Amino acid sequence: MKLLRFGNKGSEKPAVIHTDGSIRDVSSLVADYTPETVSPALARILSTADIESLPQVPQMTRIGAPLARTGHFIAIGLNYADHAAESNLPVPSEPIVFSKAPSSLSGPNDDVMLPKGSAKTDWEVELAIIIGERCDYVSEENALSHVFGYTICNDVSEREYQAERGGQWIKGKSAPTFGPLGPWIVTPDEVNDPQNLDMFLDVNGERMQTGNTKTMIFSVAHIISYLSQFMILEPGDVITTGTPPGVGMGKTPQVFLRAEDEMHLGITGLGEQRQRVITR
Amino acid sequence: MKLLRFGNKGSEKPAVIHTDGSIRDVSSLVADYTPETVSPALARILSTADIESLPQVPQMTRIGAPLARTGHFIAIGLNYADHAAESNLPVPSEPIVFSKAPSSLSGPNDDVMLPKGSAKTDWEVELAIIIGERCDYVSEENALSHVFGYTICNDVSEREYQAERGGQWIKGKSAPTFGPLGPWIVTPDEVNDPQNLDMFLDVNGERMQTGNTKTMIFSVAHIISYLSQFMILEPGDVITTGTPPGVGMGKTPQVFLRAEDEMHLGITGLGEQRQRVITR
Repeated sequence: MKLLRFGNKGSEKPAVIHTDGSIRDVSSLVADYTPETVSPALARILSTADIESLPQVPQMTRIGAPLARTGHFIAIGLNYADHAAESNLPVPSEPIVFSKAPSSLSGPNDDVMLPKGSAKTDWEVELAIIIGERCDYVSEENALSHVFGYTICNDVSEREYQAERGGQWIKGKSAPTFGPLGPWIVTPDEVNDPQNLDMFLDVNGERMQTGNTKTMIFSVAHIISYLSQFMILEPGDVITTGTPPGVGMGKTPQVFLRAEDEMHLGITGLGEQRQRVITR
Repeated sequence: MKLLRFGNKGSEKPAVIHTDGSIRDVSSLVADYTPETVSPALARILSTADIESLPQVPQMTRIGAPLARTGHFIAIGLNYADHAAESNLPVPSEPIVFSKAPSSLSGPNDDVMLPKGSAKTDWEVELAIIIGERCDYVSEENALSHVFGYTICNDVSEREYQAERGGQWIKGKSAPTFGPLGPWIVTPDEVNDPQNLDMFLDVNGERMQTGNTKTMIFSVAHIISYLSQFMILEPGDVITTGTPPGVGMGKTPQVFLRAEDEMHLGITGLGEQRQRVITR
């Protein structure tokens, strides 16, 4: 099943994609997709509902982030060996964990705003996990049963803020619009193997990133189990799992985003995002 | 005004402290204190209500965290010069920013749980800010008008997780019960000068930390303005502003928390917290 939210920013409604490809409004079944409603119970309600009978959403409607808000917006750093190399950083011996501000959450096709004076804003296509059940010391074997679904995150990053302004990466990962998420949450039954998904990111039509989740250093199951040793993961938490090679910081010479640039990114089976870059 | 929440964990109700010192249930005026309700409008409703007529809460009732949940739970590192010295770290040239998991939030007097196998869990008494209005490129001059109130945070920290497990501090700051907050939110009109508040923390009756917010490297106003250049702060975001000297990591030899230890901490005008340490 594919869950999405449609409508103007701040007044989105929940929907699913019907088997005929149409978008159906499910706001009669659930008020919204939030940390309070994302759960196995919600998945059951939606999967057993008569979707055919629900109102169809016009195709040109804006798609919002697939959650009204995140719980904790967690990110994993340097989780692809080739990306660590292009960043001139050693392959980590255990996952690097940081977070993005919840206020960075953005729709999958909304404009990405450069922070004032920013010269080093960069792109990162990533597989994101939506947690559906509380995780507290969860084993790697049981980890995937706690996943509500998968989606795409563009982990937009200001490299100067991330690395040259005092050490912790959160500063470069948290600006408004730096967390495009979506276009939809795909439930695990429709994702054969989260460790074998092709991913790409283009800027202005030029292929920048190409990768596959099979080259992750730490798997989705490992990440969930690992994080749950340090903190409780809750429904509605989003974990974005790191990016493959090809970010602007890793190019020679380095390339960063400028106003009017267009990003286009996607992951097999999870859809695509398109963002235009604007100044503030 | 002092706002607090009382009752069993997970089913707390909102309250205020009346002028006669009694706790009054305000759940007829506001459903709960959450990021959605914390605002200047809430402060007006409560300050103009006939508190005298509201039900009195029994004195022995448990006090919960003063927010049902945080928005973003942000923390500032090494914000007292003496604490940077005892940590063998240079005084930062700009604020060090990290975050705590929202699931670390805990009541002011709830037990603090040592993570499984933890040998280096430490204490940190801190002044915490509750944001009441959206902050986006806010100037230092206008910053304090965005504060909903002040409270105490014990920024409990596992030093091995923080410093020896891959670099970003979030790993050592996020375990469940690592974010005792409260006992109440004090609105700014009752805090003469947030930069002149005495603070202390005792372990088992022994004074460990003594400080005053006047020795902060970066003031409350500076922190809010600074953060708002990197991310949007939203109502219900909590910013804990760093700790004065006297943490266990800084002692010679180092001292860390063990089961049955008791912490007692406080800040002038903001009340006190007491926590017992337990194993999981």
